[in-house]
Amino acid sequence: MYRYLEPAAWQGDGMSPVNLLVAALVVVASIIAIAETEAILASRYAEQFFMTELALFCIFLIEYCLRVYAAGEDPRYKGVTGRIRYIFSFWALIDLLALLPFIFYAGDHSGFFLRFLKVLRLLRIARLGRFSQAWDAFVHALGDRRYELMLSVMLALLMLIISSSMLYAVEAPYQPEAFGSIPRAFWWSVATLTTVGYGDVTPITAIGKLFAGMTAIAGIGLIAMPTGIMAAAFSDAFQVAKEKADEKRRLAESNNISE
Amino acid sequence: MYRYLEPAAWQGDGMSPVNLLVAALVVVASIIAIAETEAILASRYAEQFFMTELALFCIFLIEYCLRVYAAGEDPRYKGVTGRIRYIFSFWALIDLLALLPFIFYAGDHSGFFLRFLKVLRLLRIARLGRFSQAWDAFVHALGDRRYELMLSVMLALLMLIISSSMLYAVEAPYQPEAFGSIPRAFWWSVATLTTVGYGDVTPITAIGKLFAGMTAIAGIGLIAMPTGIMAAAFSDAFQVAKEKADEKRRLAESNNISE
Amino acid sequence: MYRYLEPAAWQGDGMSPVNLLVAALVVVASIIAIAETEAILASRYAEQFFMTELALFCIFLIEYCLRVYAAGEDPRYKGVTGRIRYIFSFWALIDLLALLPFIFYAGDHSGFFLRFLKVLRLLRIARLGRFSQAWDAFVHALGDRRYELMLSVMLALLMLIISSSMLYAVEAPYQPEAFGSIPRAFWWSVATLTTVGYGDVTPITAIGKLFAGMTAIAGIGLIAMPTGIMAAAFSDAFQVAKEKADEKRRLAESNNISE
Amino acid sequence: MYRYLEPAAWQGDGMSPVNLLVAALVVVASIIAIAETEAILASRYAEQFFMTELALFCIFLIEYCLRVYAAGEDPRYKGVTGRIRYIFSFWALIDLLALLPFIFYAGDHSGFFLRFLKVLRLLRIARLGRFSQAWDAFVHALGDRRYELMLSVMLALLMLIISSSMLYAVEAPYQPEAFGSIPRAFWWSVATLTTVGYGDVTPITAIGKLFAGMTAIAGIGLIAMPTGIMAAAFSDAFQVAKEKADEKRRLAESNNISE
Repeated sequence: MYRYLEPAAWQGDGMSPVNLLVAALVVVASIIAIAETEAILASRYAEQFFMTELALFCIFLIEYCLRVYAAGEDPRYKGVTGRIRYIFSFWALIDLLALLPFIFYAGDHSGFFLRFLKVLRLLRIARLGRFSQAWDAFVHALGDRRYELMLSVMLALLMLIISSSMLYAVEAPYQPEAFGSIPRAFWWSVATLTTVGYGDVTPITAIGKLFAGMTAIAGIGLIAMPTGIMAAAFSDAFQVAKEKADEKRRLAESNNISE
Repeated sequence: MYRYLEPAAWQGDGMSPVNLLVAALVVVASIIAIAETEAILASRYAEQFFMTELALFCIFLIEYCLRVYAAGEDPRYKGVTGRIRYIFSFWALIDLLALLPFIFYAGDHSGFFLRFLKVLRLLRIARLGRFSQAWDAFVHALGDRRYELMLSVMLALLMLIISSSMLYAVEAPYQPEAFGSIPRAFWWSVATLTTVGYGDVTPITAIGKLFAGMTAIAGIGLIAMPTGIMAAAFSDAFQVAKEKADEKRRLAESNNISE
Repeated sequence: MYRYLEPAAWQGDGMSPVNLLVAALVVVASIIAIAETEAILASRYAEQFFMTELALFCIFLIEYCLRVYAAGEDPRYKGVTGRIRYIFSFWALIDLLALLPFIFYAGDHSGFFLRFLKVLRLLRIARLGRFSQAWDAFVHALGDRRYELMLSVMLALLMLIISSSMLYAVEAPYQPEAFGSIPRAFWWSVATLTTVGYGDVTPITAIGKLFAGMTAIAGIGLIAMPTGIMAAAFSDAFQVAKEKADEKRRLAESNNISE
Repeated sequence: MYRYLEPAAWQGDGMSPVNLLVAALVVVASIIAIAETEAILASRYAEQFFMTELALFCIFLIEYCLRVYAAGEDPRYKGVTGRIRYIFSFWALIDLLALLPFIFYAGDHSGFFLRFLKVLRLLRIARLGRFSQAWDAFVHALGDRRYELMLSVMLALLMLIISSSMLYAVEAPYQPEAFGSIPRAFWWSVATLTTVGYGDVTPITAIGKLFAGMTAIAGIGLIAMPTGIMAAAFSDAFQVAKEKADEKRRLAESNNISE
């Protein structure tokens, strides 16, 4: 049973059938949690939603108990104290947290707290992290360039402050609501530097437009920099992977020759 | 005749004259299909449109019959049963589907179904796929990185859910129409993460704007990641092509020396 | 004099002093041509604008005559017939075209034709092309990848047609002005695929928003593809340049050793 | 003391404790300067802001005096005249400039001048530059490609002028406020070429929309070019760094063998 539940203990390819089912149920549960926030759907299918939620809660509860029980086969979590230690391990806590919202949900709440609970139920998605061993190469490639990426974030912050200050200095008296202070100008500045450009706030003075144009052009640099760094990082990572594969092949070939 | 119709059987460079003509007519037919959806043009040039459609239909019908007849020269599609098998092959079905809309069109329809038929006529463009052997290198370069591209799509989905959830939690009571549920918030979230930024929906609370700014910055990462992966993939593909060319040249040179 | 006027004949570094002056005057003349379209400036400084235009016209006219005269030193353009042939050479025609608008300008025009003439005066900028030998490496790097770039343009066109068709099919009855035909939907589609996102036209139906979201995500791919191709092309070009420099150095070193 | 104050003289890793504290205080002072522009915060916490400003001013004043005194230990700035020379060195002037705004601030101002002073206080951020020796690799990688980056800026400028001219020629009579002159059309053109797309100004004529669509597509090229150049530059820089590291290791290994 332990082999079926613990991703690292599974000897076959990919995930064990049990974990595959759990992952699929987590996806289903997440979709339901998202759909249920829509009042039209929530009121029309109230009963169906509740029954599915209840069923998923029971399945996840049983799965959680089995996981705690099966953890005993791992030498680290042997015995009762070992299992208590397992309960406080990272992924077990995530599993528990993902169970909790249903209990609260059974009660009667309203306003922000209710919405917060509904969003909390999306913590279920985090459970998928348990099954994913794929991000490693990705994270590694970016991690190697975290210094350069951090520098470009700092540069972005500097651009944000400079452009907000300029627009504040120029536009404040004409649009006090949007440019009345530097923090207020941040909203416009972020939208421009990221080239999102909502258009709900735009400068109206000629000099403000000049600064805004310069900000938009600086925004291209802001996008180009992390893109360039990432491209170089991925290119590097791919080449290292290829060289490793080449070396492996060459090693295998020289072994064949010497035999 | 088979050699003139089947792209793979043509021995000259590029496409056979017949297929070049067919491809050009497909482009013309597609432009007409697009132009005809415009009511002003459709009513003014109704007759011309109809005559051109009819002429194109006849040409494509003749071409289709010739293709089915010529298919017999291919050993796979010999005889009557072979030709019937050809009719159900992928590209022949596409050719047939591209013919159908005209027949329906002759009838009298209205509303969504008519618009659907008009759009269906654009299936003609898909016929160009038959003549294109150029995408292969392109698709191959991207296919090698499909795993990384899929990961960045999943990351994008995760970002979409997280940002929508945050905005839903914060903005729902102030803008129930746009942020009243997580699925509703998706619209704003997609527009922001892709840096499209229509501006028809924007957060109005300070904390909503803070989250929106973070979403916009995350959106830059979202754009940078696939761009970086593609840049690395193309760079890789170009280098492989260059190395192959170099090796070929070296081989040719060493052959010249040994002679 | 020929050496001072003909960029290719100048033996020093960069441009000859005469051509540097001409290039600077072209920039000044272009700025004036841009500024003069603004009615506020045009009416306030009407006289100054006219005098500067007249002065620039005279200088450029003299320069043009000198160029025609000096062209005789080039064996290709010897004698009177040679000079007439020079007048019809590409850059000489550009120079002449850049002179013409002033003559018309002296007359009295209005409406579109006047605006067209004003814009035509910006042809002066094209004269800078004569002095630029810098684009070559740039154009060469991109030219090597013109096939891939063309493919991504075709893919973009396909996306444009598909997304316009979908939105037309879905949104036509609700927004006939913006989505009433496929050509009309192009405007929205271009703005979305390029992630410009003006927001003057946005889908209002749920299914339209779904398609629009997919279009926006496809738009990221549309941006990522040429960026990736260009990144790979430049990376390639830089490496070739570096390898050439390395080989040169190695050659120089081996020469030093053998001496 | 000199060793604690002068970044270049510190022998440990990173920054000296004193400079770390100063950098942190600079960040705090910048955040306060930003927050204070918000009228709501400024009026509610007027006293706290003033006290913190005063305290920071005193600390930075003492630090400045100590720096001037300690500069004497540097042979270049020995004696009284040396210290006066130090006061006029680049970073010392920045430090002084960052101190000044508080003095003016104590007075009573209004309007643009007050806002200008508030923004001037953000010069404090520039003081962080003194402690940063990290940008070098970054700036170097981009500096190597400054020629290509400059070319793409020039190309961008050309695109800006061409697209503005086209829209001016077509849209001027319909939207004189936004497209009445080429400089006015710049605002729309920058927003489109950078794909920001505020949407406060959009063409309304069919031909204007056609030109606008072409501008938006050209904008993708405008973004792709610097991104591609930067990606190639970073890729180059990373590879050079890796090769250097490899050579170092190989040298170390061959030394080990020969020993």
